[in-house]
Amino acid sequence: MQRNGTKNYRPMPSKVRVAVDTMGGDFAPVETVRGALQALGTGYPAEAELLLVGDPGPVQAELAKYDTAGMPVSVVPSEGKIFDDEHPLQALRRKPKSSVMVATQLVKQGQADVMVSMGSTGAAMACSVLSLGLMDGLERPCLGGPFLGLAPNTVLVDIGSNLDCRPGLLLSFAVLGAAFAHTYMGIENPRIGLLSVGAESAKGNRQVQDSYQLFQESHLNFVGNVEGMDFFTNKADVIICDGFVGNILIKFTEGMGGALAGFVRERLDGSVDAAVVERLANDLWETTNRPRIVGGGPLFGVNAPVILGHGSCRANGVENAVRTAVRYVQVGLLDIMRQELAGINNSGARLRASSGVGKAVHGAD
Amino acid sequence: MQRNGTKNYRPMPSKVRVAVDTMGGDFAPVETVRGALQALGTGYPAEAELLLVGDPGPVQAELAKYDTAGMPVSVVPSEGKIFDDEHPLQALRRKPKSSVMVATQLVKQGQADVMVSMGSTGAAMACSVLSLGLMDGLERPCLGGPFLGLAPNTVLVDIGSNLDCRPGLLLSFAVLGAAFAHTYMGIENPRIGLLSVGAESAKGNRQVQDSYQLFQESHLNFVGNVEGMDFFTNKADVIICDGFVGNILIKFTEGMGGALAGFVRERLDGSVDAAVVERLANDLWETTNRPRIVGGGPLFGVNAPVILGHGSCRANGVENAVRTAVRYVQVGLLDIMRQELAGINNSGARLRASSGVGKAVHGAD
Repeated sequence: MQRNGTKNYRPMPSKVRVAVDTMGGDFAPVETVRGALQALGTGYPAEAELLLVGDPGPVQAELAKYDTAGMPVSVVPSEGKIFDDEHPLQALRRKPKSSVMVATQLVKQGQADVMVSMGSTGAAMACSVLSLGLMDGLERPCLGGPFLGLAPNTVLVDIGSNLDCRPGLLLSFAVLGAAFAHTYMGIENPRIGLLSVGAESAKGNRQVQDSYQLFQESHLNFVGNVEGMDFFTNKADVIICDGFVGNILIKFTEGMGGALAGFVRERLDGSVDAAVVERLANDLWETTNRPRIVGGGPLFGVNAPVILGHGSCRANGVENAVRTAVRYVQVGLLDIMRQELAGINNSGARLRASSGVGKAVHGAD
Repeated sequence: MQRNGTKNYRPMPSKVRVAVDTMGGDFAPVETVRGALQALGTGYPAEAELLLVGDPGPVQAELAKYDTAGMPVSVVPSEGKIFDDEHPLQALRRKPKSSVMVATQLVKQGQADVMVSMGSTGAAMACSVLSLGLMDGLERPCLGGPFLGLAPNTVLVDIGSNLDCRPGLLLSFAVLGAAFAHTYMGIENPRIGLLSVGAESAKGNRQVQDSYQLFQESHLNFVGNVEGMDFFTNKADVIICDGFVGNILIKFTEGMGGALAGFVRERLDGSVDAAVVERLANDLWETTNRPRIVGGGPLFGVNAPVILGHGSCRANGVENAVRTAVRYVQVGLLDIMRQELAGINNSGARLRASSGVGKAVHGAD
């Protein structure tokens, strides 16, 4: 596995070059092209430049629908895409010119500053790790961010990429999540909580019990175990769990959005103006389906900026993902994460050499 | 550990004798006595009889507030209670005459048909297992039931009593959950789903991957893996997970209730009649805090009927828990669970001798 493999990466470019995997996602390339252009069109990241990676025919056809004269947009040709149901590594080998591969290579070769993909998460992760390398001391990348509109300042890591985790891996999530919360979200000295079934240090499954001390000994602002309700109690800014629990929580929340919308429609039917009810139902869906709105978040731990998005995103989600990409580069998050990891590693390389936990295994698929 | 230790248990008594641990719970004995009486007072379980177990002074003082003339209510004296922060086994040894111990003994000795406690779940579980024994073939009891008003017919097992689970233990949850769904909730041939991060059999953490085949080979109506959103998609009637995930999901949902109530108050403020808003906020809280409303559910796997409740229940929750207790006995759930377990055990005692899963461990604290 390549480490520190992106020497050409520029930490603070004057113009952020975003490589967009326009073939990735359920509604690609229609919504990906539209969303990427929206990110420019609103003038928000005036300093951004788009590299639209995809099959030239379909991408050009989409581009032709818009007036892009004078806009910093170019098309970078690729061949085919990787689907969700393909085995990531096998597919990457079979399709070396696929859109996600080409977009990642642009970053690796210094022709882009950040890559955005709404395609297969597994393929994009594997491609990123293999091409761009992991930060020193890490064994796996992870995904995280605020996932709930009702708790917009609470960061959850991991949200699905690592199913069985050793304590050292959980600690790396905490380090990266803390750097993100501080640098990207402006939270001073973020409070880290370990998701468990009780606040006491003895409460938890084997994995949490084995991790508690490691967290406590770290330089992090560890506030101890937190529980399910603590997403709403402001006890922690960054909540750490394995990707199995994180994935279930996120999908549970998303599913609840639809159920809540139906619930308020039924309860308010007839007694409240229909437009008000619809607005409330929509608000409830949005607050529980934040990842679809936000579009995408950083792949933590990879040695160059990569933003992975929700496959079901429409143009607005893609637009937000591109904005996140620009901001990720602008705030210099990558360097800060590297520094934080170095701090942990210098204190004894505890991330990889975790305490006796033969029982918990990492890295499912 | 004692097994089949309750020879005096009468499966279908004409009058259900409910031993209520009136000292257990955050608002005991005020709300426990009131709730138990309410269960009789509404005339619902006309065939029920209450044995109120507790410190005689406080319990009689509560009883004196009501007109109980002619009601089938008696007080059974006990001494002290076990608190949530006590170590269950140590506390049981130190306080052999505590309310939960005496109430359980009433069931063991055939003087009561079912026990209800809103006190320390750990103490009540330990006490039940030690005094009443486990059903043949089980290694641990479990807790389960529908936990979400938005999905009132979906049963979740385990909801917090077993944190690390081997496949055989998860299978026992499924057998008991299926018997409950069928016998108590009237669901024909309940569909069993294994909670995971993807529908495909290969998706999941080590625990789920190791359990999948065992579930598939069982006589259960196993529909495969389900995901977080499937609590709302009607893909399964009984969803199985370890108690770590179950506990987090339930507390997350309960916490969300308060956040949702605040959310709709803020969104509808000024545009909708205040009384309508308050009713909706309350409805949202209730639908996400079902365990507090339902009051309590059966402790599955113990060899006599035991109902454990939410410590924060008020009288209405206690009332519902007592009703559940009566119904539990009336439908003969215990015998059906025993038969289902015997079916699994006869097919090769797969519950205890689970397939090679050295990596996953059971029974946390």
